[in-house]
Amino acid sequence: MLLKGSTESLTGQLSSRFAERIRTRLLAPGARLPSVRQCAQEQQVSPSTVVAAYDQLLAQGLVEARKNRGFFVRELAPARVADTGRRPPAAAEARRPIDATALIRGMFHKVSDKPQPGMGVFPPEWLESTFMPAAVRKVTSSRALQEFSLQYGEPLGDGGLRRALSKRLAALSVHAAPEHIITTVGATHALDIVSRTLLRPGDPVMVEEPGWAVEFARLAALGMRILPVPRHADGPDLEVMARYCEQHQPKLFVSVSVFHNPTGYCLSPGSAHRVLQLANRHNFHIVEDDTYSHIAPEHATRMCALDGLQRTIHVGGFAKILAPNWRVGFLAAHPSLIEPLLDTKLLQTLTTPALLEKALALCIEQGQLRRHAERIKTWLAAARSRSVKLALNAGCRFAAEPAGLFGWVDTGVDTDALAQRMLDEGYLLAPGSLFHAGRTPGTLMRINFATTQDAVFWKKYGELVRRM
Amino acid sequence: MLLKGSTESLTGQLSSRFAERIRTRLLAPGARLPSVRQCAQEQQVSPSTVVAAYDQLLAQGLVEARKNRGFFVRELAPARVADTGRRPPAAAEARRPIDATALIRGMFHKVSDKPQPGMGVFPPEWLESTFMPAAVRKVTSSRALQEFSLQYGEPLGDGGLRRALSKRLAALSVHAAPEHIITTVGATHALDIVSRTLLRPGDPVMVEEPGWAVEFARLAALGMRILPVPRHADGPDLEVMARYCEQHQPKLFVSVSVFHNPTGYCLSPGSAHRVLQLANRHNFHIVEDDTYSHIAPEHATRMCALDGLQRTIHVGGFAKILAPNWRVGFLAAHPSLIEPLLDTKLLQTLTTPALLEKALALCIEQGQLRRHAERIKTWLAAARSRSVKLALNAGCRFAAEPAGLFGWVDTGVDTDALAQRMLDEGYLLAPGSLFHAGRTPGTLMRINFATTQDAVFWKKYGELVRRM
Repeated sequence: MLLKGSTESLTGQLSSRFAERIRTRLLAPGARLPSVRQCAQEQQVSPSTVVAAYDQLLAQGLVEARKNRGFFVRELAPARVADTGRRPPAAAEARRPIDATALIRGMFHKVSDKPQPGMGVFPPEWLESTFMPAAVRKVTSSRALQEFSLQYGEPLGDGGLRRALSKRLAALSVHAAPEHIITTVGATHALDIVSRTLLRPGDPVMVEEPGWAVEFARLAALGMRILPVPRHADGPDLEVMARYCEQHQPKLFVSVSVFHNPTGYCLSPGSAHRVLQLANRHNFHIVEDDTYSHIAPEHATRMCALDGLQRTIHVGGFAKILAPNWRVGFLAAHPSLIEPLLDTKLLQTLTTPALLEKALALCIEQGQLRRHAERIKTWLAAARSRSVKLALNAGCRFAAEPAGLFGWVDTGVDTDALAQRMLDEGYLLAPGSLFHAGRTPGTLMRINFATTQDAVFWKKYGELVRRM
Repeated sequence: MLLKGSTESLTGQLSSRFAERIRTRLLAPGARLPSVRQCAQEQQVSPSTVVAAYDQLLAQGLVEARKNRGFFVRELAPARVADTGRRPPAAAEARRPIDATALIRGMFHKVSDKPQPGMGVFPPEWLESTFMPAAVRKVTSSRALQEFSLQYGEPLGDGGLRRALSKRLAALSVHAAPEHIITTVGATHALDIVSRTLLRPGDPVMVEEPGWAVEFARLAALGMRILPVPRHADGPDLEVMARYCEQHQPKLFVSVSVFHNPTGYCLSPGSAHRVLQLANRHNFHIVEDDTYSHIAPEHATRMCALDGLQRTIHVGGFAKILAPNWRVGFLAAHPSLIEPLLDTKLLQTLTTPALLEKALALCIEQGQLRRHAERIKTWLAAARSRSVKLALNAGCRFAAEPAGLFGWVDTGVDTDALAQRMLDEGYLLAPGSLFHAGRTPGTLMRINFATTQDAVFWKKYGELVRRM
């Protein structure tokens, strides 16, 4: 909210706010600023204040005026080499993936101290526990540290952790020996290794839509052709997949089977079977991102379990249950793929930090992780039922049956615009455009059930939606 | 050595040894096995034992016989999908970088308990210290852990570490603000981020030859055209570089200026200046890998210092001084490149583990790292002078003036063959072919001064060379 009594003028406050949002890319390049009239109304200031603020942004080169269309955030200026005045090579091209990463970058930026409905992880207070620091201290307090830190370590990753993961996967009916598991710097890194190993630039790749923007952005940055497959309640749209297979011979299908992001959908056994049949017939791999497995039932349908890691690659991580910043993830694959996947890991990072992997192995072995996950599941169920009630009362409609961590909500208004207005109030939303490969705007948004039990948020939300 | 009294037959022992080496890729696909007569002589067994052993390898599909040419290690069988009998897509192509990664993979494989002259890092007993575990315990023992672990953390990397690195770089006359530094999973990851951000498949890239095989392999895996530039004592061959610039318009030059791997050469100020002039004239970037800075004089010439990070990108790490497995590295670049480089980091790993970064920051701030580096430098100087004497006595000639961590040694015999023979004795060598983009065999090899003070090694070495 703009403060009338502040030492800074209203114009200055308004232009600073836009400048900050452009800098942190919460307002992406190419986005349109609200019209002068609309902004004046929203911010309860005079139109001349808005005009003056927009003029300041123009002068700073942050926005541009397009005739009869209004003000737009400028593409970031091409990188310049100060001493020659010439663009350094490739810097402009390097910017191309920016569009899709913009909003993700915004999500790392702390907007306020309020609970953030757009966040992708549990709030820190849910994750707080004493067993992780204890495990780290334990593995550092012995001579063991020397043995594993002072050399590069095992290329596949810590053996103890891989054994623990192998057991954990068996409980999900995914059977992988420790030597067919590779540890990574989080699940994101695992997905990156898979893309880089199995694909070459220009290859067609099927992704679920809606789906997770980091995956779209990475595939785009690697030069892949993205083929979006609509995701329905029971699984991906098989007709669309079949058509893609006939026309494009895709090499890979990237899928979140269990508690799909952002819808919360779980794959049905029948769909899983038919997708695998397609994969066999048309000779493509499937990477199954099982990021939400810790809060999911063990018996949930996984393609990796059905086909025994023949054409499927399992990817998992701990950011959703333990500590997002530990960055420990892993993949499990068919024995024939392990060597090429490991080559890619070696070329990217050599090995991964054994200290964190050993501490995590300890947490798994001692059962602390499992108990922690049970606790989180209980809290999440309670939070979900509260959030659903609040959302329905605020006039939302659920586009997907509420399940898992995320709710996929229809607001009835443009969620890109809504997200900007809610930012004024200190709330970060995840608008639906973030989950579409083409960034199509719409009325949907993703909410995190763990961070949307706040009646104040829903009150604010209701007020803004009514005014839009 | 083959054991006559063993329960396993000599044939079995010999074929197992080759099988193990092929499996761990210490014998790379395409490598030729010694002739039957030669192997019999080397191993002091009868030719019929060797023939029987080679037959076993043939039967196992590990080697193939080529008419009148002998036995060769087979390319690994294309990956198979058990339930269809068809190759999964891209698995064969994915294998392509294998050649160059083969020997690197071998270097992670513990050959014996002997000191390993081919290793790229200091021996664990040199790196052992109490300050690192203490730092880890300190950062995990406070509430601070919660704050940084339970969220994704800062995309650029831990702020405290970046401030410490900024100061450290200033001492090397490289001026980068903390916000123009990005932390990574080791220096390897930093180099990978730079390649992925600045280059597109097919782009020509200049590398130093001899040079570091992981860099060649990564660039090859990314589909780049590698242009090898001979590295001389004072710097890269400027005539060759100029010719490449005219003919290929390279986009990037990858260079180790200080204590170049494998020669130990340091860049002269004049060469540095002329390379930068070329870069300006022909519009390419330079990534300067300063991995050995901790054991180098601060006043050593760095291109990043000369041009103030205009066209240069600085890459550094701690694997050589602290703990290879911590995997903390960083890059410093021109402000205009930070955003696209950060996008690449986000798409690969989201963030990096703040726990390790905070602990490292503590070690730097408290001066422990600096004192540790001084200690290592003293030990290395003593080790180098002992190793040089032993090497000269064993008949080696130094192809480059001994300096830094590595010696670049002319043995007078084929070092690929020598490396296989020394493996029989439990020693891992780094043959010269490992440092050539085309894997050209030759008489050179790289030795690690810290691990070649062992008179037993040099005695064995002398015996084998005399027999070759």
